[in-house]
Amino acid sequence: MKINGRSFRTIWPTANGAAVEIIDQTLLPHDFVTRRLETADEVAEAIRVMRVRGAPLIGVAAAYGVALAMARDPSDASLANALKLLGATRPTAINLRWALDRIATAVRRVTLDKVAETAFAEAARMADEDVETNAAIGGHGLKLIRAAHARKPGEPVNVLTHCNAGWLACVDWGTALAPIYRAHDEGIPVHVWVDETRPRIQGALTAWELASHGVPHTVIVDNAGGHLMQHGRVDLCIVGTDRTTRDGDVANKIGTYLKALAAFDNDVPFYVGLPGSTIDWSIRSCREIPIEERAAEEVTVITGRAAEGMASVQVYPAGTRAANFGFDVTPGRLVTALITERGVCQSSEAGLLSLFPERSNG
Amino acid sequence: MKINGRSFRTIWPTANGAAVEIIDQTLLPHDFVTRRLETADEVAEAIRVMRVRGAPLIGVAAAYGVALAMARDPSDASLANALKLLGATRPTAINLRWALDRIATAVRRVTLDKVAETAFAEAARMADEDVETNAAIGGHGLKLIRAAHARKPGEPVNVLTHCNAGWLACVDWGTALAPIYRAHDEGIPVHVWVDETRPRIQGALTAWELASHGVPHTVIVDNAGGHLMQHGRVDLCIVGTDRTTRDGDVANKIGTYLKALAAFDNDVPFYVGLPGSTIDWSIRSCREIPIEERAAEEVTVITGRAAEGMASVQVYPAGTRAANFGFDVTPGRLVTALITERGVCQSSEAGLLSLFPERSNG
Repeated sequence: MKINGRSFRTIWPTANGAAVEIIDQTLLPHDFVTRRLETADEVAEAIRVMRVRGAPLIGVAAAYGVALAMARDPSDASLANALKLLGATRPTAINLRWALDRIATAVRRVTLDKVAETAFAEAARMADEDVETNAAIGGHGLKLIRAAHARKPGEPVNVLTHCNAGWLACVDWGTALAPIYRAHDEGIPVHVWVDETRPRIQGALTAWELASHGVPHTVIVDNAGGHLMQHGRVDLCIVGTDRTTRDGDVANKIGTYLKALAAFDNDVPFYVGLPGSTIDWSIRSCREIPIEERAAEEVTVITGRAAEGMASVQVYPAGTRAANFGFDVTPGRLVTALITERGVCQSSEAGLLSLFPERSNG
Repeated sequence: MKINGRSFRTIWPTANGAAVEIIDQTLLPHDFVTRRLETADEVAEAIRVMRVRGAPLIGVAAAYGVALAMARDPSDASLANALKLLGATRPTAINLRWALDRIATAVRRVTLDKVAETAFAEAARMADEDVETNAAIGGHGLKLIRAAHARKPGEPVNVLTHCNAGWLACVDWGTALAPIYRAHDEGIPVHVWVDETRPRIQGALTAWELASHGVPHTVIVDNAGGHLMQHGRVDLCIVGTDRTTRDGDVANKIGTYLKALAAFDNDVPFYVGLPGSTIDWSIRSCREIPIEERAAEEVTVITGRAAEGMASVQVYPAGTRAANFGFDVTPGRLVTALITERGVCQSSEAGLLSLFPERSNG
């Protein structure tokens, strides 16, 4: 998507292929800074501290991390180290594992002298495929927004989203936001309620990218969505996911479950945009999804722009204990439909298998 | 309750009766500062900017505001002005209106020379009654916590609360927190999950007062409660309310409804602690409760302690639009029971009338 009229992806290899560049998302929405990553360690750090974030993007970033490791040392031991290092960065995102499996498989097929080149080519292919996948999610989701608009012609369609599942979370387009960009570009009036998404306030990223693209939006605290839905001010919800089970349970940013409950209670459609790579076909129960616990300081300290530049403020009494769960799981029964690159389906095993029949046997 | 071993109320008249003093809650949890209010205008400002907050406390503060106005000018015009000024500060809290009605009635009964004295005496009586009321709520709620403890002896009872309905929101004790203080004082192990409560982060007030009293607690973002309830880590919820309808619908801090939905979905009891003065017998539907909209800056700017003292940080891109709804309404069907000074009842008209039979006729 565009920033000041110039097209960007969230990750790209340098011209000489010796490094990758990313947009450092820890500095957004205040500063737009790109950052050069030269080693797998630097990629792992960037994933861990969320310079890159969002399930699709961390998958592609991890693939580039393996490629950087292979460029330095193409041995089996080096590969194993890189996979272990990068696989340990974020436990909840299934397609981090998927991405690492895929690049490892590609690398293991070739002789030692081709390993680095193959790894970079595979990472680049994964990035391109992510763009295509999300464009397709956007196309399928566009039909749902168009239908919502047809039910109230002349008025904007109000879409609520949680966290950032926009192009910043992917290589381009986004999962949850792709349908919104497509609708906006097609001239359908769309207004987005942007959940703040504490503790890390990814709503600021969503606000930033929607503003950059010119999509009308209003930020709300995470507490407000239920009230808006009770009063008919949300036409539909769209969120992303880090991992969806075979039965259609959806792990996503902490708080998603609460919005799904409110949507269900108020007959507001609740959609999840996802690439097939975020489906974990090996598990059914949401209880089997590991939920990342992060540092308490993400809750107790908030960073933003002060009069003299960036500053961090402590909002609780000194010594206050805080717990910080990264994700929750929304049961499939609360999800109206899943929007995938292959189309829209029910959030159930039958629904998913209707789009991914090759998974019927396990 | 105690601060550093010294007992405090949240509001008290000065020795000469010429002013009232309050704890300035906008400076908590970082600085404990008391503030002298000498005029109804100063009281109105304190309520509006939330130096005093919480439905019970703002009722008593408004009563003292009328008393201060009467001390300067006991005329009918002065009374009408004070009632109008103070009544306009916060639209959602019903007992602000109740308190103003009560003090106006008391003042109108006496001759002009007795107006000021009567007003101060009535405000003081309301403060004392608030303390008694909340102690009684604590006693009734204690039984519920004791029963929860009996179901899991040896383990702490985990209570989730939203916003601050502790002693800082009242004159003393609190509504939602009174049962917790009583249980803790009785030796029942209690642990409190403290909802952050964006935008104004009243969770910091709750953390501060629980820490001052020695009650174990953990702060969580507003997004986290559903996840905790899904995993059996919340035994019961207790919140306060600014206004409860005749049918048992509960207006409380924005986000309460989302927690009630999660409690209902996970069979976690959801209790509301309230003095009878917060019941609005005149309305049934939650749609009739006016919901205060506050400044967008409460969402976009966050204040806390930085290295060099207090600082405010902007967390969204410049120019981001934000909406800020102060309250939401939780339908009575999601509330397990109401805890009042007269006992515990179902959140329905029949339940409320069983405790307040004098309201049977309208």
